[in-house]
Formats: sequence, C-alpha cells, structure tokens
Amino acid sequence: MPDPPLYPPERLLDFTARVFEHFGVPGDDARLAATVLQSADLRAIDSHGVARLHSYVDMFHLGRIDPRAKIAIVRESASTATVDGGNGLGLVVGPKANAIAMEKAAAAGSGWVSVRNSNHFGIAGYYVLEALERDLIGWAMTNTTKLVAPLWGAERVLGTNPIAIAFPGEREPPVVIDMATCAAAYGKVEIARRAKKPIPAGWAIDRNGAITTDPDAMIDGGAMLPLGSDRERGGHKGYALAVMVDVLSAVLSGANWGPFVPPFALRQEIPTRSVGKGTGHFFGALRIDAFIEPSEFKRQIDEYVRTLRKTRPAPGTNGPLVPGDPEREAEAIRRRDGIPLVLPVIEELRDISRQTGIPFTE
Amino acid sequence: MPDPPLYPPERLLDFTARVFEHFGVPGDDARLAATVLQSADLRAIDSHGVARLHSYVDMFHLGRIDPRAKIAIVRESASTATVDGGNGLGLVVGPKANAIAMEKAAAAGSGWVSVRNSNHFGIAGYYVLEALERDLIGWAMTNTTKLVAPLWGAERVLGTNPIAIAFPGEREPPVVIDMATCAAAYGKVEIARRAKKPIPAGWAIDRNGAITTDPDAMIDGGAMLPLGSDRERGGHKGYALAVMVDVLSAVLSGANWGPFVPPFALRQEIPTRSVGKGTGHFFGALRIDAFIEPSEFKRQIDEYVRTLRKTRPAPGTNGPLVPGDPEREAEAIRRRDGIPLVLPVIEELRDISRQTGIPFTE
Repeated sequence: MPDPPLYPPERLLDFTARVFEHFGVPGDDARLAATVLQSADLRAIDSHGVARLHSYVDMFHLGRIDPRAKIAIVRESASTATVDGGNGLGLVVGPKANAIAMEKAAAAGSGWVSVRNSNHFGIAGYYVLEALERDLIGWAMTNTTKLVAPLWGAERVLGTNPIAIAFPGEREPPVVIDMATCAAAYGKVEIARRAKKPIPAGWAIDRNGAITTDPDAMIDGGAMLPLGSDRERGGHKGYALAVMVDVLSAVLSGANWGPFVPPFALRQEIPTRSVGKGTGHFFGALRIDAFIEPSEFKRQIDEYVRTLRKTRPAPGTNGPLVPGDPEREAEAIRRRDGIPLVLPVIEELRDISRQTGIPFTE
Repeated sequence: MPDPPLYPPERLLDFTARVFEHFGVPGDDARLAATVLQSADLRAIDSHGVARLHSYVDMFHLGRIDPRAKIAIVRESASTATVDGGNGLGLVVGPKANAIAMEKAAAAGSGWVSVRNSNHFGIAGYYVLEALERDLIGWAMTNTTKLVAPLWGAERVLGTNPIAIAFPGEREPPVVIDMATCAAAYGKVEIARRAKKPIPAGWAIDRNGAITTDPDAMIDGGAMLPLGSDRERGGHKGYALAVMVDVLSAVLSGANWGPFVPPFALRQEIPTRSVGKGTGHFFGALRIDAFIEPSEFKRQIDEYVRTLRKTRPAPGTNGPLVPGDPEREAEAIRRRDGIPLVLPVIEELRDISRQTGIPFTE
C-alpha cells in the first residue's frame, strides 16, 4: 500500500473553516472550530480531525447544530460557571467555555466550568494546551455517545469519556495527558476488522457481554471495555473514571449523560429518551502561582520529566515515554511535512467539496 | 481457617486514639486521626486501617512525625491554598487541609488545596465522604511511596497514587469513587504469596521489568503495574493518571514526588535524595449549587444510579455495581457486627499495647 498523501496543514485548515462558514458559522468561529479539528490532525489523533468533518456536515444538514448559537452563562460563582452552549458547534462552545474557566482562574485562583447543550468538542488535549499558553494547569473532560460497558455490564452505557490535563515545564516540554477512560480506542477495532485480524482480549465484549477477540462481534452490538478491562485488572476503576467524567460534564451542567448522550454520527442509534440538553463538557484551570512560584514548579517538572526518562527500560522498550511525547513529536513532523490523509477521508472531503462548492485541491 | 475475630468499632477507635495521644498527639487530633483510620476498617479497606497503626507508631518512635505539628497556609487565593503540614500526622493534616478546601468552596464556589510536608493520610475516600456531609463534591488525591513502574519502565518510580471523588444522590446512596491508579493492590500480591498462588498477568513485573505471575518475583525488587497493565490495554493511561496525582499533590505544593516520596514503613528503602518536603496531597471541593440546583443534581444522580443498576448483566455476574457499593455494604455490616482482624494485625496491636501500656482488650 502506498503511503497516504500529505496535505499542507494550512490548506486543510482553510478548507475546514470555509466549510463551517458555508453552513452559517460566523467567520471567527469557523476559523476557531477548524483550528480545534486541526489540532487533532497535527497531533496524530486522526479519528478526531478532518475525518470527522463529514459528521459535522451531516449534523448541519439535519439542523441538529445551530451554527450561530450564542453561549450563555446560566449560573456562576467566583470560581465556577455553568454554560449553556445553545446547541452550537462543540468546536466553538468548547473553546469559549474553556476561556471562561481560564478567566475565572485569573481572578479567583481556579476556574471550573460545566457545559450543557453542546456536541462533539474535538480532542480534549486542545483545551489544556490553550491553558498552557496562559501558564495555567488546564483540565478538560467531555462525555460522548455510548460505546463502553460498565464493568459486569453486557451493553453500551457510557461514552469513551476522556480526561486531559497538562503541566508546563521550563526547559523540558510540558507533560500533556489526554486519555479516554476505556481500554482501547474504537478506531483500533475498525482497523482490525479491515485487516481481518483479532483484537486483544480486554478491549471489548460481544452482544452477550462475553469478552471477545473478534472485531465484528464488538461492532455488531457489543461494547468496548473500560480501562482495566476486567475485575482482576481494575476494570472497575476505568468504569468509575468514566462515571466521574460523565457526572462532572453532564449531571453538573444539566446535559444528557450515560446512554442518553445524543449520537454524533448518523450510523449511531438515537437514545430512547433525553435527560438533559445536548452533550456535556467540563473544563478546569488552576493558576500555578496561586499555589507555588511558577519558576519553581516548572523547574520541578523538568526534573520530573528527566527522572521518568532515566527509568531503567523494560525489556524490548526504550524506557517510559512522558505523557504527550508521541503527540508532540507527531506535530513537529506534520507541521513540516503535512498531514497524511487516508483515501476514505479524502473521499469524504471531496464529497463535502461537491456539496458545498468549496474547492478541495490536492 | 476459623473466621477472624470481630472487634467492636468503638473499642478499636478508643484504643487507636489513646495510642496517638500516648505519642503526644493532642486529644482532639488523636480522635480525628483514629476516626480516619477507622473509616478504612469500616469500609473493608483493611490495609489502611489499624493494620497501619504499627507503622505510625514506628514513625513516632523514630521521631519522623511531629505529633503537635501545626499546619500553615503558605500561599492562597480566593479558591486555592497551599498547606504545609509541618511534618504532622497525615491523618490530622489531611482532614484539616480538606476542611480548608471546603471552606474555600463555601466562599468562592470551589476550593483546591495542595499539601506538602505530610505523610500517609489514610484512605482517600474518607475525605470525599466528609465533603458529602456538607453537600459538596469532594476530591482527594495523595502520592505514596514508590511501588509502581511507569509503563515500559523496569523499576519502581511512582506510588499507587489514589484518586477519590463522590457525588450525592437524593434517595439512592452516593456514588463514591476511591481508587488507586495501579492495576491491583500490593496487598493482593502478599496474599497470593502466603497462599503460594500465582498472581494474574498484568499486575506486576519482576526486577528485570518482565511481566511476572510469581508474587515473590514482584516483591523481590519488582514493581506493580499501572492501571491498564500493558501498552495494548492502556497501561500508559494508568501511568499518566499516577503522574497527574503526583504533580497535583507534590509538585504543586513543594512535596517530594515520584521515587523521592519518603517511605512509610520501616522495610521500605530511603530515597536517594529529597526534592521537597514530606508527602503531598491534593484536595478539592465543588459547591453543587454553584453549578445547578442541588435537588436537580441529586435527582439525576438517583436516575444515573438506577440506570447503571438496570444494565444487562455480563455472563456470570449480577450486573454492574455502582462505585462505592462494596464499601458501603461492608460498613453497614461492620458497624453492626464488628471489624474482623487477622492474627498478624492483632499481634501488632498487642505489641503496641505492650509498648505503650494502653490495654488492648479482646
């Protein structure tokens, strides 16, 4: 198979922004949304970049997203706020709610924002990188459409519910954590299916709730497993983390939670009922200087990173990575060489181009 | 083997408080510390209850804990504080720092306290149950003596670094999450060793960094594995969570982190150097009414709990538990029937009784 073709980041960004504008998103918001999507492509989280653009387009066609939504603070305190995203694009609601958390932190030492009435907000990592720019410790979480079984459950009840947090260093790169709370990404099951290969035990169950290594058995009514996979290896912990993310993102804001989170792709089933408004997110920001001298904090993070790198390596490895290493390295390469897109994604972008008249040049 | 004998909770509490007083801890603090230890015994987290009392006694004998330490706020903002525990008993420093987080939340919507110069603080769950009493969402984290390898590392670098958080329901019991960020508890490896049984693959590595099922190979210079166990099943995620807890607890407060966290038991090796003061904790509190009507929040938590319970069960199970179920059920039984203690723990308590002259009656 030939290498996938590489696309200049700025050209993809421009195309994406114009597509959002075509559907009525104001220019600044369209550019912001395109930037969030692109951060996924740059960081090699390919499932969350332009590969999702067609799903957003579908949602606009169905009128399921308000392109001109205004976000509103519906309740607040000195260090907290609840935001209603007005059923706007998650890629716009997310950054604006995150900005409120960062403003609260500037004033009160920390800021915490729970968001309802939003939808898919891109990669959680984007938001904590924004906080790093302002020398804040940022947190971001979101719930997502059901895909994961609670431990000892036989069906999809929870989303992949990611958690991100980042810590700045001085000379060393920042520690950037961005992780779903399930054992493995659904995209890996799809890749195994296409390759006609089994998946590792511990990733998924079939429609009867039994552990399966058959990707089709997972996709056909099965579910992904929480981080930890089974009781013996701590599957109850990944399950608990998914619940934590869900409650902070959705119960605290008044969004839908668990099996009631709205679907984002057309192929996903519609929940039986609604228990809130849209999808939920949770953002946090901590001012480092509210706790300790930032220079001292960063010096210690440098030392921490070096300590992790000096760990004696396990056999067959080069030793531990620091959280954020793979994404940062991917970003350096992709900014220079371009973003690789696989044919199915290119075909989707061409289809969007045909629908909108916006040229997608290669 | 006969069932372990049962001890009335109030008698153990009294004995524990008197032991702390014997070593110079003021009466109120001694009672508080005993209450924290007892919460572990009541909730069947037996490794963290009176089974640890002998380690505290050893620390007092060595002068490693200041029984009369005063905690001090060394930096603060409207919603945050950094606390120096004065090398006091973690079981006293912890509750006092947690109280500061809760007071900050009352005033500013949320409160976040990072603590240095402390030591073992008991179970993280205790602190979030305290927050529940005040209708707050509580968080608690702590770092601990090194025991866990970073993914792809061959040695102990990180602690078991637990995370706790709790959410109140109205008619349903609260959701109480309290979990270490490693795949399994070290105590289970010791149990397997005594029973001469193998441990599951995924719990631990041997001194060379290879996955082992031999409990002795782990204990003899090996390490526990982070939640997720290996790269395929998300071991990088458990590792990242352990780093997160460590940075919030220790880098943010100026405590020791990673392999430099001081030992708590005499058998543990002394770190090669110190990078801060004592052990670190991190407490958070969120005022629910700063985000949403508390009655609405609790109604939704009830609904959430019922939804989890209605999940179709996996084969061979009764379906998902709700986080906190096992501990709450244990507490109900143990409050009524007493706390079971195994012989080695009884012998340690008898030894403390001999050392201190405080009667340990059975």
